[in-house]
Amino acid sequence: MKIDALTFDVFGTVTDWRSTIIYEGKQLQRDNKSLGIDWPDFASEWRSGYLEGTQEIQRGNREWMTIDELHLVTLRKLLSRFGVTDLNEQEICDFNRVWHRLQPWPEAVQGLHRLKEKFVIAALSNGNLSLLTHMAKNARLPWDCILSSEFAGTYKPAPQVYEKAAELLGMSPSQIMMVAAHEQDLRGAQAVGFRTAFVYRPMEFGPHKQSDHHVSGFDVVATDFIDLAYQLNA
Amino acid sequence: MKIDALTFDVFGTVTDWRSTIIYEGKQLQRDNKSLGIDWPDFASEWRSGYLEGTQEIQRGNREWMTIDELHLVTLRKLLSRFGVTDLNEQEICDFNRVWHRLQPWPEAVQGLHRLKEKFVIAALSNGNLSLLTHMAKNARLPWDCILSSEFAGTYKPAPQVYEKAAELLGMSPSQIMMVAAHEQDLRGAQAVGFRTAFVYRPMEFGPHKQSDHHVSGFDVVATDFIDLAYQLNA
Repeated sequence: MKIDALTFDVFGTVTDWRSTIIYEGKQLQRDNKSLGIDWPDFASEWRSGYLEGTQEIQRGNREWMTIDELHLVTLRKLLSRFGVTDLNEQEICDFNRVWHRLQPWPEAVQGLHRLKEKFVIAALSNGNLSLLTHMAKNARLPWDCILSSEFAGTYKPAPQVYEKAAELLGMSPSQIMMVAAHEQDLRGAQAVGFRTAFVYRPMEFGPHKQSDHHVSGFDVVATDFIDLAYQLNA
Repeated sequence: MKIDALTFDVFGTVTDWRSTIIYEGKQLQRDNKSLGIDWPDFASEWRSGYLEGTQEIQRGNREWMTIDELHLVTLRKLLSRFGVTDLNEQEICDFNRVWHRLQPWPEAVQGLHRLKEKFVIAALSNGNLSLLTHMAKNARLPWDCILSSEFAGTYKPAPQVYEKAAELLGMSPSQIMMVAAHEQDLRGAQAVGFRTAFVYRPMEFGPHKQSDHHVSGFDVVATDFIDLAYQLNA
């Protein structure tokens, strides 16, 4: 197994969307906005809206839109459903960009630096390039380059996304290892010939909801990025 | 003038293609390969082949090929013209990748780090993404993201390249400043509404050949990236 590049899922694998949304939601409350919202529930619903949206687009049942656009559509629905009426347009658009400000899991940046010494490391996310760029800048994620589903015009786990990534990296799929906390993403990558590394992120959905676990059939299963670096001799 | 991102030309503006090619050419000689070649001349000719090729593709007179491919086509012609017959296929392909290993101008990396504190900094080059990724990794160029003409399917100074870059950055052209040592590149960016910064690189073509100078009509004219950072208050 000769790996030259690692491509990373981002939402949930590198960054902790749930905690960041809860944190920023509570900040709004401190500004006397959106009082009484169940932010953990809000975060889950926002993420679910993203998953449904990308699946519909990937299956051709919905027109292409970027993740920023999809997040905004979902956010407006949720604000209405949760009875939030005290945010103006500017505040809504700013809150939508919380996804640009997601915080990394505690060991993620250190792990990426280690892996970068040995491999090309690239984001390969459904997020649009500008979102991923701002996130990397804010969280200091040391990507060698950023790849987005946007380049393929559809969303993971569609094969075109992984194929486009391999083409842009100038590598054959077997030289690339997809790293993700989500089984479905890794199955998609595997289907086009990528190597795969599953990373456990047991807290992705919070303490009361199961994340993917008991996985099998992947080249590497790691507890976090430091363990991944160790297993890949990086 | 409110600038949020700087997009950089790479070959000649950030990295010194001529010196790197001459240096690696002389390394070949030390290995008793390709003796007696005029490497400065070889470097100039290789660069000229690139310029002609991209112009033909940009004008629709030639089928799309990546810069790696175009460099290889040109390299084979030059090896033949310069009478080099002692390189095997592996050595030719490796030498073609000298463009992945270009060295930065002396102050470039430090300047980019300063500019990165204030702006999104992105490569915007005719080079293909994999070339630019390897170059950034090798020369430690701290890009926030890498943008390539490859995403637009044509080459600078075609307007589509700059338009695609603005779309991917999620910004209007007026929020972006193109940085280049080449007047033609800046005129192309200006035509779609980018701000422009000309940076002098008097040694790009060597001591005996003129690089672009006496320029006017750009928002900033800088002697190097440190001066650019100073002028942009970064």
